[in-house]
Amino acid sequence: MNAPVKLEGLEVGYDVPALPGMDEADIQTPCLVLDLDALERNIKKMGDYARAHGMRHRVHGKMHKSVDVAKLQEKLGGAVGVCCQKVSEAEVFARGGIKDVLVSNQVRDPQKIDRLARIPKLGARAICCVDDLENVPQLSEAAQRHGTQIECLVEIDCGAGRCGVTTTPAVVELAKAIEAADGLKFAGIQAYQGAMQHLDSYDERKAKIDVAVAQVKDAVDALKAEGIECDIVGGGGTGSYYFESNSGVYNELQCGSYAFMDADYGRILDADGNRIDQGEWENAFFLLTQVMSHAKPDKAICDAGLKAQSVDSGLPVIYGRDDVEYVKCSDEHGVIADPKGVLKVGEKLRLVPGHCDPTANVHDWYVGVRGGKVETVWPVSARGKAY
Amino acid sequence: MNAPVKLEGLEVGYDVPALPGMDEADIQTPCLVLDLDALERNIKKMGDYARAHGMRHRVHGKMHKSVDVAKLQEKLGGAVGVCCQKVSEAEVFARGGIKDVLVSNQVRDPQKIDRLARIPKLGARAICCVDDLENVPQLSEAAQRHGTQIECLVEIDCGAGRCGVTTTPAVVELAKAIEAADGLKFAGIQAYQGAMQHLDSYDERKAKIDVAVAQVKDAVDALKAEGIECDIVGGGGTGSYYFESNSGVYNELQCGSYAFMDADYGRILDADGNRIDQGEWENAFFLLTQVMSHAKPDKAICDAGLKAQSVDSGLPVIYGRDDVEYVKCSDEHGVIADPKGVLKVGEKLRLVPGHCDPTANVHDWYVGVRGGKVETVWPVSARGKAY
Repeated sequence: MNAPVKLEGLEVGYDVPALPGMDEADIQTPCLVLDLDALERNIKKMGDYARAHGMRHRVHGKMHKSVDVAKLQEKLGGAVGVCCQKVSEAEVFARGGIKDVLVSNQVRDPQKIDRLARIPKLGARAICCVDDLENVPQLSEAAQRHGTQIECLVEIDCGAGRCGVTTTPAVVELAKAIEAADGLKFAGIQAYQGAMQHLDSYDERKAKIDVAVAQVKDAVDALKAEGIECDIVGGGGTGSYYFESNSGVYNELQCGSYAFMDADYGRILDADGNRIDQGEWENAFFLLTQVMSHAKPDKAICDAGLKAQSVDSGLPVIYGRDDVEYVKCSDEHGVIADPKGVLKVGEKLRLVPGHCDPTANVHDWYVGVRGGKVETVWPVSARGKAY
Repeated sequence: MNAPVKLEGLEVGYDVPALPGMDEADIQTPCLVLDLDALERNIKKMGDYARAHGMRHRVHGKMHKSVDVAKLQEKLGGAVGVCCQKVSEAEVFARGGIKDVLVSNQVRDPQKIDRLARIPKLGARAICCVDDLENVPQLSEAAQRHGTQIECLVEIDCGAGRCGVTTTPAVVELAKAIEAADGLKFAGIQAYQGAMQHLDSYDERKAKIDVAVAQVKDAVDALKAEGIECDIVGGGGTGSYYFESNSGVYNELQCGSYAFMDADYGRILDADGNRIDQGEWENAFFLLTQVMSHAKPDKAICDAGLKAQSVDSGLPVIYGRDDVEYVKCSDEHGVIADPKGVLKVGEKLRLVPGHCDPTANVHDWYVGVRGGKVETVWPVSARGKAY
């Protein structure tokens, strides 16, 4: 757009890629486009699933970093709140009106702990994860300093190989320390198996979660034997939520990517051997790009490169086209193999990014479209909130 | 930081990672840190080289996206202006006071062409690249509409395999069309060989540039035979600038990464077989991270993942340490192999990112340090300017 405009109360500068009411064809590229019909169907479907299985759904806000999407997930999907990975993200969600916010991560830096302890003053429940006894007095002091309460989940590393303790005695020891600390409340268990979500085979994924479920059940039972109840036993992603939902142990899901889908997740297979983006979930998240050069007959150059997406999980796929292929990504360019020379300069294409989370993180706006028209433009509210 | 602060005239929010005067140890992570001494030495060195070889240096602003760094390159390195890849970036540099701005890319979208044509009104020379005759009247009309002048370089694809024409007759035809178009001025040749910059071997890089130089010389000679002079014959990057400088054909360099260095560029070898980050250039650009979990004795988890860097060109390297290694990157976490268990929670490490350009693009701030103190905090002025 060519002049600063007022958009939903925000003064925005030159680079809002679209305005509500505009034809989809006029959206500036590269930019993120949400198919609102598909997004709403995905959100409703997961919400219905969770409800039917007696699970709460705490949607993963780190994926979209959008207060607007989180509120849609509350409204249409019955989400009970969000999880996110950084205190700065949690602040954005709490300020945006989300009332129940889990930082599903460790918070260790003194300044971050101080900020976390102030989140209840923004009107939200604040929960974080703990995997180290030394963290308990740090969190406790901050909560007392601000007169607030921080709820704590003990994180179990059930296969992701990152944060989290690995033994039941360590879980019990941490839970007791949290229970005993002023300003803190033990709220349960965090056990997200991140490493298996992208395994293609349903059976391989199930085998990994079976191990996780046994590990979590052992911890929950040991806590119960000590008289300690878990309000939350949380985990589960887009590649596993049915396993956790039927585990008899977990009670909260933490799915994120199901709402948007991406090329990497889309390739994993369901129980019947079908790709999950061919029936289970719809592609609702696109990187709109435009052909900007076609000086060679069999090669088109588009305007979406590494600064418009993350290729950590592979190159984007051109949606709905099997005659052209995105084959190379440099900083500002994408190279598209166009063997028949069918693309024209100026032509726009929808890319399905390889990985939705870090792709959303490089953009300032989501352009929501329906029926060929721009319906809404939402800020990527927590873009860049990495602290 | 815990409260909005005023910084160099900007009202900034919660997430400025440091303030001038602060100890380096207190910088919030993950965040970009510039070693100002090393940065200044790199900038001065390249400026001295260009001057000694009779070359102008038009620094590549797409790398750092920072008006402040570009101005330092003008001041200490004698830079004649910047190049960048997007019109929205060019606007940022022009508004920031850079007087000579080349969009070293094609500009095809009508709205982008309109914005480009207005850049001279911001006080800057506006130059772009052309590789298609159909683009000439589009640019001409916009320049006339705004009463401005757009200077055009004909882009030659001399091996990068992206935009650009490949034959001398095509160059001459385009140059004549530009010369004949109202509002436009033919300014010369853009011939950046991007594909060879990261080849490890000096001789392999030289062989690629020899081909490019011959191709560019043929075009420049053919233009001269038609009475058309090239004000600019531009190209050259951190892996090749000595070849273009000694070519007798090029007169402008377009180096970017030399100022910051990154892990991928650092591995290429100079004429003597030494890594270019071991003498030719210094690492001036770091991603500061902090250990946030060490629940397993041989593995530390840090707070810099895919949302704080791009791993398209490989994982980051932990600066100055050979006892620990960054081995895995997920959305918000880095896994550090720590076989001897030497790292402590809260400990900060400097990472050398794999690829500086897309890493800078996910951050809002550069924290400039000198002698253990924060000296300045600069915005990543054109962060996210992908249009």
